[in-house]
Amino acid sequence: MAVGSGALPEFPAINGIRLGVTEAGIKTPDRKDLVLIELQEGSTCAGVFTKNAFCAAPVTLSKRHLSASFINSNKASHSYLLINTGNANAGTGKQGMEDAVASCKSTAELFSVDLDQVLPFSTGVIGEKLPVEKIQNGLPSAADDLNEKHWLRAAEGILTTDTRPKGSVASVQYAGETILINGISKGAGMIKPNMATMLAFIGTDACIPQTLVSELVTELSEISFNRITVDGDTSTNDSCMLFASGASAAATVDVDHEDYPHFKTALKNVFIELAQAIIRDAEGATKFVPVIVEQAANSQEALDVAYTIAHSPLIKTALFASDPNWGRILAALGRAPIEALDLSKVEIFLGDVRIVNAGEKCAKYTEAQGQAVMDCEEITIQIKLGRGEFTETVWTSDLSQDYVKINAEYRT
Amino acid sequence: MAVGSGALPEFPAINGIRLGVTEAGIKTPDRKDLVLIELQEGSTCAGVFTKNAFCAAPVTLSKRHLSASFINSNKASHSYLLINTGNANAGTGKQGMEDAVASCKSTAELFSVDLDQVLPFSTGVIGEKLPVEKIQNGLPSAADDLNEKHWLRAAEGILTTDTRPKGSVASVQYAGETILINGISKGAGMIKPNMATMLAFIGTDACIPQTLVSELVTELSEISFNRITVDGDTSTNDSCMLFASGASAAATVDVDHEDYPHFKTALKNVFIELAQAIIRDAEGATKFVPVIVEQAANSQEALDVAYTIAHSPLIKTALFASDPNWGRILAALGRAPIEALDLSKVEIFLGDVRIVNAGEKCAKYTEAQGQAVMDCEEITIQIKLGRGEFTETVWTSDLSQDYVKINAEYRT
Repeated sequence: MAVGSGALPEFPAINGIRLGVTEAGIKTPDRKDLVLIELQEGSTCAGVFTKNAFCAAPVTLSKRHLSASFINSNKASHSYLLINTGNANAGTGKQGMEDAVASCKSTAELFSVDLDQVLPFSTGVIGEKLPVEKIQNGLPSAADDLNEKHWLRAAEGILTTDTRPKGSVASVQYAGETILINGISKGAGMIKPNMATMLAFIGTDACIPQTLVSELVTELSEISFNRITVDGDTSTNDSCMLFASGASAAATVDVDHEDYPHFKTALKNVFIELAQAIIRDAEGATKFVPVIVEQAANSQEALDVAYTIAHSPLIKTALFASDPNWGRILAALGRAPIEALDLSKVEIFLGDVRIVNAGEKCAKYTEAQGQAVMDCEEITIQIKLGRGEFTETVWTSDLSQDYVKINAEYRT
Repeated sequence: MAVGSGALPEFPAINGIRLGVTEAGIKTPDRKDLVLIELQEGSTCAGVFTKNAFCAAPVTLSKRHLSASFINSNKASHSYLLINTGNANAGTGKQGMEDAVASCKSTAELFSVDLDQVLPFSTGVIGEKLPVEKIQNGLPSAADDLNEKHWLRAAEGILTTDTRPKGSVASVQYAGETILINGISKGAGMIKPNMATMLAFIGTDACIPQTLVSELVTELSEISFNRITVDGDTSTNDSCMLFASGASAAATVDVDHEDYPHFKTALKNVFIELAQAIIRDAEGATKFVPVIVEQAANSQEALDVAYTIAHSPLIKTALFASDPNWGRILAALGRAPIEALDLSKVEIFLGDVRIVNAGEKCAKYTEAQGQAVMDCEEITIQIKLGRGEFTETVWTSDLSQDYVKINAEYRT
């Protein structure tokens, strides 16, 4: 199951970024499971990673390499992202780190670059040894496959329990030239510690200084990937990477340039589309649910309320049932961790329909109105707190019997 | 579904406490849905209530009456608890409060007592008007039914989606005389905002001073009803009441008496048994799961870790599947809100089997060992944090497809 058609955009080739995919047989035969992304010399790259204390070996190693010489525009050589599915290499201790290093080392040798010019990413089962040899054996064919056009293949190659590949593209005029942006992501639970992981890779041919690429990936992932939730669980392997080859004819991106806002909006939209695509394809999802909290005293309290609602199993099962059960929203709101909530100022909307006003059911509200909203695939829950001027949005899915089935059966 | 046999104890009659039950047709015909509990004059009584900001009208009114003259041992009249199922009288605004008052008033008139000598409790659908007339019409027959032996009938009369009545009894020697304790409770989700509610009523013939009964209900509910969770949702109507008729021959309970520890332990066991009974009968539950967090730096951090694990849908679906998927426990632990967790000190046990040591899988652990534990109906998850001396235990259930089914279909 999934919400919407999930139709993919046509990915243009992006100069300076090549992608190669192969079937390395890491967990399952005849499945694309190894992806290489090559960034031409002079590219910039930055990422955000899981905050889970048990972050996986590849996360630790990617962070280490990023802070070392991975990004060094003085170095006349390419850089590589190495992504495998089928095994998360998490909870694997010292051996896991040795395996992550060994995979990077083979990649570095293959392309004659330094070890720290390779960033590893893994997603799959936790606690099992990474089959390094299979990765090493697959590398030459992934390398042979490197091509600037292979975004769709890469979008397929990073999937786990996702039911479909996810992508977003944008092109934007900057200083009279065209900048292209391509992005791919995978879910499918946000975030699945076992299947581990949300991954997103966004590439552009813009020339973006390293400090700015770092700022952008942090700021934009905060309002996209950090605003989605399926089940409240975060993964040991989550990673979101933004890289810029600088191969376009456009001038270097500068925050003071008049075209910067357009560029940033285009990039932001790619981040948000990729994040939403994960929710639309969440495990067992039948509904796509924006939760908008308005009139909060501050941003944190808006988020606290939004997540309390987005994580409530009772609300999520009601969404699955297309049941306009606003009592569950009211009750979740009542237990949200905010001080001195004044019920007489609270409003609750389902779609355009105001259901609760001043803490009780609106006189005009009819069940038929609520039902009409709940019958849709996309259902907006909107809360007005009457405490201030802050708004936050979180995107979530419903909780279906298939969610339980998928997660109960995953390892068997 | 439910865990264990759920066999009920034989409830003895308790002097000074009478219970009456009737079928008032509040939501469904031919169902016990109205319960009266009469406490003889001179009884003491105290309660703890939901912390949900949207607490229901009966909760507000019960609190008001409790702090007024309800407990006034100088008053030569009985006091009453009035409990209805089928309607939570929550999210009902001013009308809800008027309806709660009207129900209490009718009860007070029937027994010629003051209005504030009646405490109302409601559980059922949120946001629908309380059918006061049905309650008023049912009162005489509930009054006719008042009897010191009717604990089982009352245990049945407070149920909603519970699959079975819940009770616990104890008798304890105090100063050479016997004190009896009876308790009843209902769940069935902890806590279901819609079906609203966890309710528990514990009565004893002990003579307990008002200040002590108040201290006991607060302290003992904290380590029993406040340590269970099905889905993290709290209700608008949760209430736990402890009342003492003073009708036994035993001396007044005194914390300095040599028998006090025995009395308190007996009472504590009744609280815990009633709380655990709610989890064993949680909606769709097939497993009963104590989560024990040891070696925490303080109590709060132990609870934070325990609840992070107990609320993880991924862990709960793995429990449902009897899948020893320790990676999910590791990942949940990794996102628990505690500072500077040292992975090298963490141990994870399933039952008696140590699975994780120093943040990675134990060399000796085999999947068969984990599977043997997971195949049981009762599965203990034990975490050692290596940070200090504090231990906390939380009880939870698994997340089954039936949980989704029950909560998706409840209103239809």
